[in-house]
Amino acid sequence: MDLIQKGWFSEVSNMWPGQAFSLQIKQILFQGKSDYQDILIVETTNHGRALILDGIIQCTEFDEFPYQEMITFLPLCAHPRPEKVLIVGGGDGGVAREVAKHPFVKSFTQVEIDALVIEKSKEFLPFMAKGFDSKKLTLVVGDGFEFMKKHLKEFDVIITDSSDPVGPAVNLFTESYFELLKNALKPNGIVCSQAGTPWTDLKQVQATIGNCKKHFPSVKYAVTSVPTYPNGQIGYLVASLSSTMDLTKPNLQFNPKELKDMGLRYYNSPIHEASFVLPTCFDDALFN
Amino acid sequence: MDLIQKGWFSEVSNMWPGQAFSLQIKQILFQGKSDYQDILIVETTNHGRALILDGIIQCTEFDEFPYQEMITFLPLCAHPRPEKVLIVGGGDGGVAREVAKHPFVKSFTQVEIDALVIEKSKEFLPFMAKGFDSKKLTLVVGDGFEFMKKHLKEFDVIITDSSDPVGPAVNLFTESYFELLKNALKPNGIVCSQAGTPWTDLKQVQATIGNCKKHFPSVKYAVTSVPTYPNGQIGYLVASLSSTMDLTKPNLQFNPKELKDMGLRYYNSPIHEASFVLPTCFDDALFN
Repeated sequence: MDLIQKGWFSEVSNMWPGQAFSLQIKQILFQGKSDYQDILIVETTNHGRALILDGIIQCTEFDEFPYQEMITFLPLCAHPRPEKVLIVGGGDGGVAREVAKHPFVKSFTQVEIDALVIEKSKEFLPFMAKGFDSKKLTLVVGDGFEFMKKHLKEFDVIITDSSDPVGPAVNLFTESYFELLKNALKPNGIVCSQAGTPWTDLKQVQATIGNCKKHFPSVKYAVTSVPTYPNGQIGYLVASLSSTMDLTKPNLQFNPKELKDMGLRYYNSPIHEASFVLPTCFDDALFN
Repeated sequence: MDLIQKGWFSEVSNMWPGQAFSLQIKQILFQGKSDYQDILIVETTNHGRALILDGIIQCTEFDEFPYQEMITFLPLCAHPRPEKVLIVGGGDGGVAREVAKHPFVKSFTQVEIDALVIEKSKEFLPFMAKGFDSKKLTLVVGDGFEFMKKHLKEFDVIITDSSDPVGPAVNLFTESYFELLKNALKPNGIVCSQAGTPWTDLKQVQATIGNCKKHFPSVKYAVTSVPTYPNGQIGYLVASLSSTMDLTKPNLQFNPKELKDMGLRYYNSPIHEASFVLPTCFDDALFN
């Protein structure tokens, strides 16, 4: 793994050929290999700490908040009463941090396959890993597929916070995964998954939406600005077992004081709706 | 200028310290120096042709369309009857290409200071420079400041398509520039300027909005995804001399056939409104 040269880490991948994003590194905090992936945690010069898995930036302290807030609050605020939540993946703890904030959530479970990501996030990324401190959380180290097979009709919302569809996360974009999600949901349940952006791979986003549509009557796609992700954007697939629920409108709206008290810096009700509005070319390609 | 190493161009700048975006280069089409700036035009491996001024990417064939469409159609569709338009800058021709599409525009003038950018764009970037072919266009090679001093109360809309606030474009973000804009507008006129993104420089965006507010009663700020720009996003300041005009709502709405006939791939009426919706942290910092 020779990704750092002359003090810069460069993210080069076949998933986005011909382009690369680089961060200047002050210090390597951890570099190792788990059973599943290469793990690199660095202190950057200008973007705080960063988690890099298999050479791909997962989050930086500078701009992790839009990702975590949106993947969490889009499904939780679309659902009328999200009391029981499952997180698949999310080993850095950032999504757990956000789920714990929602006033309706009574308990939530997180299933992450890679114990070393959890351990090193607790050690080096406390601003995210503080999500693991929630008393509402049951943390399971294991395979999300196997977990869901044993937990049917149990969750109001399931959030899949995965890396990109290569390596350990590839199964989290398939039709059989969406079937498992469907079966683990209560009636009218909602799922939200990291789903890439059409700027990077339109066909992958189309395929993921297609796989989801085989099991969910209502499927929407939202985008958020995350500067250190490829093309500066990430997308979310948000889907419901109810065909009449409008996922683009939040059921629960927070006022400015509530947003501030919860420490929400990105998510608000207008941006919930706006995130589902797509440029014509992507709307046509994904939904027409 | 040694920006290309091992076949990659890297965009490094003090404006975004600690981060860099790189494009893989197939061929250098032109490299030279005008009276105002270094000009580099390349054929990339995966992003088509790209124009790079003073080491900063201005546009790539891959993703120039959101920038050009939004900087043009936000002000033109907010205005009830944009018949006479001025473009300041925009030497690649992309904004002219878009202005020429709008059904209400009877004539438009473009003032670009750098004749060599125009010449080389015509030679190497025909997909944008075709904007210069419009019969409605009067193209002036000169200084936008000097031009506007002599053209008072003349334009319905003025679009400032500038590079970033260093080098030749630095004056296009100042209070005196917004005063000139105000004086060159007809009553109820609208301006739209490239205004950077708070991800890159919040203080710069704040300062630009502050400068504009000294002369315009209604000032708004919109963002658009442009992957090859720093942080994958660009912002626009949209301002009106009318305090009652709602700039966030398009006056003129296009149906899908009209969008297709005009070749609009990004802009549509819902995204007009959505582009003004900001995350809480930026909304607070810019407008509260």
